[in-house]
Amino acid sequence: MNEDLSVVGKRLPHLEACDKATGAAKYAVDIRIPGMLAGKILTSPYAHAKIKKIDKSKAEKLPGVEAVITWNDIPHKLLNPSVQEYVLRDAQNEISDMYILSEKARFCGDIIAAVAAVDQATAEAALELIQVEYEVLPAVFDPTEAIKPGAPLVHDFAKQNISKHYKSPNSQGDVEKGFQEADVIVEITLRTSKQHITPLEPCTCVASFDVSGNLNVWISSQRHFIYRRKLAELFDLTERTVNVISQRLGGGFGEANWTAIPICVALAKKTRKPVKLEYTRKESLLNTPTREAYVETGKLGLKKDGTIIALQENLLSHGGAYFSRAIATAVVNMSNFIGLYRCPNTSAEVDAVYTNVPFSGGNRGYGGPQAFLLLEQLVDMGAEELGMDPLEVRLKNLKHMGELTHIGLPLETDTQEKCIRTGAERIGWKEKRGKNRAKGTMKYGVGMATYFDVSGGQPHEIFDRNVEIKLTEDGEADVIIGIPDMGTNLIGTAAQIAAEVMGLRYEDIHMVHGETERCLWDPGIGANAGLYGVGNGVMRAATEIRKQLLEEASKKLDAAPDELDIKDRKVYIKADPSKNMTVAEICQDSIYGKEAIHDLKGHCNIFAKISFTPTLNPAPTGAVFADIEVDTETGRINILKLVLAQDCGKAINPTTVEGQLEGAATLGIGFAIFEDYYLNPQTGALESTNFNTYKIPSSLDLPDMEIALIEEPVPSGPFGAKGVGMCGMMGIGAAVANALYDAVGIRITDMPFTPEKVLQALKNK
Amino acid sequence: MNEDLSVVGKRLPHLEACDKATGAAKYAVDIRIPGMLAGKILTSPYAHAKIKKIDKSKAEKLPGVEAVITWNDIPHKLLNPSVQEYVLRDAQNEISDMYILSEKARFCGDIIAAVAAVDQATAEAALELIQVEYEVLPAVFDPTEAIKPGAPLVHDFAKQNISKHYKSPNSQGDVEKGFQEADVIVEITLRTSKQHITPLEPCTCVASFDVSGNLNVWISSQRHFIYRRKLAELFDLTERTVNVISQRLGGGFGEANWTAIPICVALAKKTRKPVKLEYTRKESLLNTPTREAYVETGKLGLKKDGTIIALQENLLSHGGAYFSRAIATAVVNMSNFIGLYRCPNTSAEVDAVYTNVPFSGGNRGYGGPQAFLLLEQLVDMGAEELGMDPLEVRLKNLKHMGELTHIGLPLETDTQEKCIRTGAERIGWKEKRGKNRAKGTMKYGVGMATYFDVSGGQPHEIFDRNVEIKLTEDGEADVIIGIPDMGTNLIGTAAQIAAEVMGLRYEDIHMVHGETERCLWDPGIGANAGLYGVGNGVMRAATEIRKQLLEEASKKLDAAPDELDIKDRKVYIKADPSKNMTVAEICQDSIYGKEAIHDLKGHCNIFAKISFTPTLNPAPTGAVFADIEVDTETGRINILKLVLAQDCGKAINPTTVEGQLEGAATLGIGFAIFEDYYLNPQTGALESTNFNTYKIPSSLDLPDMEIALIEEPVPSGPFGAKGVGMCGMMGIGAAVANALYDAVGIRITDMPFTPEKVLQALKNK
Repeated sequence: MNEDLSVVGKRLPHLEACDKATGAAKYAVDIRIPGMLAGKILTSPYAHAKIKKIDKSKAEKLPGVEAVITWNDIPHKLLNPSVQEYVLRDAQNEISDMYILSEKARFCGDIIAAVAAVDQATAEAALELIQVEYEVLPAVFDPTEAIKPGAPLVHDFAKQNISKHYKSPNSQGDVEKGFQEADVIVEITLRTSKQHITPLEPCTCVASFDVSGNLNVWISSQRHFIYRRKLAELFDLTERTVNVISQRLGGGFGEANWTAIPICVALAKKTRKPVKLEYTRKESLLNTPTREAYVETGKLGLKKDGTIIALQENLLSHGGAYFSRAIATAVVNMSNFIGLYRCPNTSAEVDAVYTNVPFSGGNRGYGGPQAFLLLEQLVDMGAEELGMDPLEVRLKNLKHMGELTHIGLPLETDTQEKCIRTGAERIGWKEKRGKNRAKGTMKYGVGMATYFDVSGGQPHEIFDRNVEIKLTEDGEADVIIGIPDMGTNLIGTAAQIAAEVMGLRYEDIHMVHGETERCLWDPGIGANAGLYGVGNGVMRAATEIRKQLLEEASKKLDAAPDELDIKDRKVYIKADPSKNMTVAEICQDSIYGKEAIHDLKGHCNIFAKISFTPTLNPAPTGAVFADIEVDTETGRINILKLVLAQDCGKAINPTTVEGQLEGAATLGIGFAIFEDYYLNPQTGALESTNFNTYKIPSSLDLPDMEIALIEEPVPSGPFGAKGVGMCGMMGIGAAVANALYDAVGIRITDMPFTPEKVLQALKNK
Repeated sequence: MNEDLSVVGKRLPHLEACDKATGAAKYAVDIRIPGMLAGKILTSPYAHAKIKKIDKSKAEKLPGVEAVITWNDIPHKLLNPSVQEYVLRDAQNEISDMYILSEKARFCGDIIAAVAAVDQATAEAALELIQVEYEVLPAVFDPTEAIKPGAPLVHDFAKQNISKHYKSPNSQGDVEKGFQEADVIVEITLRTSKQHITPLEPCTCVASFDVSGNLNVWISSQRHFIYRRKLAELFDLTERTVNVISQRLGGGFGEANWTAIPICVALAKKTRKPVKLEYTRKESLLNTPTREAYVETGKLGLKKDGTIIALQENLLSHGGAYFSRAIATAVVNMSNFIGLYRCPNTSAEVDAVYTNVPFSGGNRGYGGPQAFLLLEQLVDMGAEELGMDPLEVRLKNLKHMGELTHIGLPLETDTQEKCIRTGAERIGWKEKRGKNRAKGTMKYGVGMATYFDVSGGQPHEIFDRNVEIKLTEDGEADVIIGIPDMGTNLIGTAAQIAAEVMGLRYEDIHMVHGETERCLWDPGIGANAGLYGVGNGVMRAATEIRKQLLEEASKKLDAAPDELDIKDRKVYIKADPSKNMTVAEICQDSIYGKEAIHDLKGHCNIFAKISFTPTLNPAPTGAVFADIEVDTETGRINILKLVLAQDCGKAINPTTVEGQLEGAATLGIGFAIFEDYYLNPQTGALESTNFNTYKIPSSLDLPDMEIALIEEPVPSGPFGAKGVGMCGMMGIGAAVANALYDAVGIRITDMPFTPEKVLQALKNK
């Protein structure tokens, strides 16, 4: 089917381009319901404090206030804000340690109470009237301090603030022996930062119970079905009475975008009125998860010829005040670190650590960028010791076809070398690297990194996809997928696949998605899983529809189904295309009196429903190259050019793929040099509370970006496609770090690489 | 399955009782959309007039007016307001003769123009500013006048105002020979009235195009899918872009509740804003259809022993200004007239006649009450001539098991005699009939009538039903049927069937209905067709679900599916009911870690989709008995008691069945003695424009009603049920007429039997 494609591979506009441009596409933040109340949260001003007493009587008496709730008013069920337990094959690494409203303040910003009032101003005034008596406790902010004996305990059950210890089961061989056999050993310890994803839509929930007790919840969520399940469990509702609507997201908040939802539902339940809880930017920064921060120590052993012989990683996973994804992201970090290259002796271990800082979660990249930051700097360091080109060291140790990827599934295509060579060519690796280019105080360097990623959560997560397709009377198709659209145009990509398989046009496909009531179960979007899982599901359902169409046409065109083909809305006899009929004709009674519509009951309702269980997990491979300028007077790093050579299997819509890569790369640039989630070291209070202090790259900060798509279709992917949504940010940090070393010979161990740190490092050197 | 029922047969509350009581159940008239305009119609003050000129410029200039439309602004496609052509097997008897807005006024009230404005007052003011120059033409109001040579022509193509002549194909034998062989012949000519159904919700449409051009239309319609189809055709839209929502009706307007819809859509299309067009009571009375009126002549020939030997009917079907259902209802009238009793020689013919009066349609009863009014008076008249008890004459000529009913399909059960005997017993037939009871000027009489009805439109109409059932995570069921709910609690009845078959509780069933976007094609509700067609569909889909549940449980309970049963949400081993599991357990992962939810992909999505084609059409039989009081001083008829002995096959919910019969009987009482759609004989203007002048029976006017349900399950019905929604009104007119004759010896040939007419007839006598 691949040779002669009509819709797949085309640069088509985002499926919701028109609706988004006109504002017709509604986000959770746009929802307004008559009689809707405004919710507000009260957060702790202390990083660690016992709540001795809360007096809410004054607040409750304020006219317009309809509810004030504290820990006493909520279900006393502990939860993990990532709500991931339903989709993990093995949940032994999960901890539920958070209440909807906290019984004790564990970080400066922890939510203590909430209010619903007739408007925002009244709700804010009510917050002022809630009288909380705190007993301030000693706090600890640094993970290395937190694990010292005698440090303040964030949760009583976690001795020395260590909630979990975990050794990667992907560890293999004898790492000590490996290092003994190594000719060169390099080692480094890094501290990664708490980057925040900062979607433009602030975290919002609208909750409304109807008179029959049914609950409608509008959110921007990647996983609305599992949120529904958790809401039902928390509030003792049956799942079918809960409808969670998350059709499109104002951005991915990461996997623990949970805090606002049950609070909002609790307020709606208490008031029996619709409630909207919309976080401010500061509240979003504090109570939706940041990227997991690590103190990560890596050690690499090499043979003289550049062969990697031993790899070891030790992590402190800095979850903050709540556990969240502390182990899950570390598992990904460790798999990537010890699994990217062929290496016989590996070991990786992590301690998850509590401190009194805002909690982390699983954000775009999910431990990967931090792993490659460590690994790919070590490779450069080792190559330097050996006097080799680090690019050659990488090529020497690449995994190839059939070898097991970092997650233990076979590599289905062999694309990594092509990514590296293409990227090197485009950036001018040979011409630029180690050439000590300089213009006065401006220094220049190039750096690279390579990486694996995934096309889903398998085998750890259960990412089954359910798809229904119905053809309509007009010969068009409703394609019903549960998954929300994050803005990645997954729905458009799925529509292209559906159109291609069924022989329809892009505009004939109508996607229904992101609402639990209208769709079958879906585990959600994340981990590059959308295209591979949903795309495969749509392909299978569309193939079933195609079969039904050919069977129907077969009767009318008097030819066997295999003598027929469908293209551009027409079913025709391959040997004589003049004999044809439109899909619409098959679907409807074209002329009244010839056949009435419901004689076509098996036809006008051409329908398929499939469930797809992904078992493989093709690894998209990639390499990124950065050409940077360092102002040695100010310490400012300016990325001049980025080349991303990315294996995507097959680009269903190249514009979409490029858009995803560029978007992720922008996040990677923020991670590397801009975004500083700055906590006051004395109080633990967040000081970068808005975009003036929390700097994300603007379009003016972005380099010339060149995307080279490496298309080698993977057998198990839909039309050969892999998922690449997170890939763009995987190697940026490492590539910039290596370029910085190439430019000025420094390595900064504390992210991000701000001008201050660069200047300090230059001074130290 | 019938012997031990848990849900079917129970008197359960209406499924929407709570939503209706609280106002949560929205009708079309409740819909409010931000920015919605108010529509208004301009109607002709003349019964017949050429429109020489319309100047709408002043109206358009009025601030707040957003559109003024006339015939020039609408698609020039003729239509029949019943929009039935899509579901008839043979449409040769259909005529499309109406435009959305008329190009010529054909009755006093014909719609000439329409306005959309920011509010109702502005829209009304705008109507005043539309300047129409009429050329008044001679008009004709009486159907017998209209067919005379030289009468004014309502439509140019219909010579002598006869649009169609039709002879019933059910005619058989040689009717002339039959009358020659008859010992007694009786004949009568009646004029039936233009009863209006007068639903409490005035005829309303809300139409709104979204930015993508999709059209949402809220209406109270019995047939929203065929309305969608017609809207798409009229406005050149694809059907999938039109969503017609008609979840519940404020009453059945009859089958031509069409006029407001395309006008409203045309206004929305022109303004690109949402428009609500809500008719006043007068507008509803004028522009939604009345019951078809006939001038009907019947002739009956009997042998001495009471055997019916010949039956002949000649109809003028008085459609009014537009054709609508002029032939369709006459076909039903004629089938009933010649088909109720066994008779070897029959003939029935109709001329459909145009006049300058508001148009008729197919209202509850659909020609039947008028047929039985004629036939059942003739039987009484013939019995009198023979000196026989008319009850005995009826018993003698009844059709029995296996004989063909009036619609030519075999009688599947033999219940008519039981209906007659039960009713006679309950009313006290022997004690009261012919006893010349009197108290001063008050006279008393009893009368009876018997009738057939249908359980759908087959074989003439195509009434295929599509049903989907999905089980949810909680072990509850979404049952998706296209059909709207008229208030008959069809949805509750369907829920009982679904619950019974699947072994669930009534409250576990969630009906999705009445919206074209969410449901599969459905031909609509009418002709008692809902329960038989949809009920059978639901039963089949639920049986398929039951099979899937047993198969799943079989694996887990380690027993063959046929060793299992389901009851009250539990699947259990019949031989050992202690071994069981809940339906919810089958549907969900009961404990996390044992089985994750999507491993159950085939399970949590237990799903069935079926299409049911009704081929049979069980005739519900019935007999009605009236005990009346006639005030010979005032002419007022007071019905003291009504007994309805009704064969319903099986009462799925006896309360619902009784409610339907009582409601229809109330309509029958209005038809017989109250409801007078009074047109001024000089101008043709409607003078009974509201409930003060158009008198419908109030609760104080209603007699003691006794319903005797005759339950003999019909093999082809769901749990043996037949449809009986219209039955309650079928025989009322005839029973009251015969009781009137029993009381005071008069027969009134012009309906309704108002005090004035009774007094006049008493004087004449």
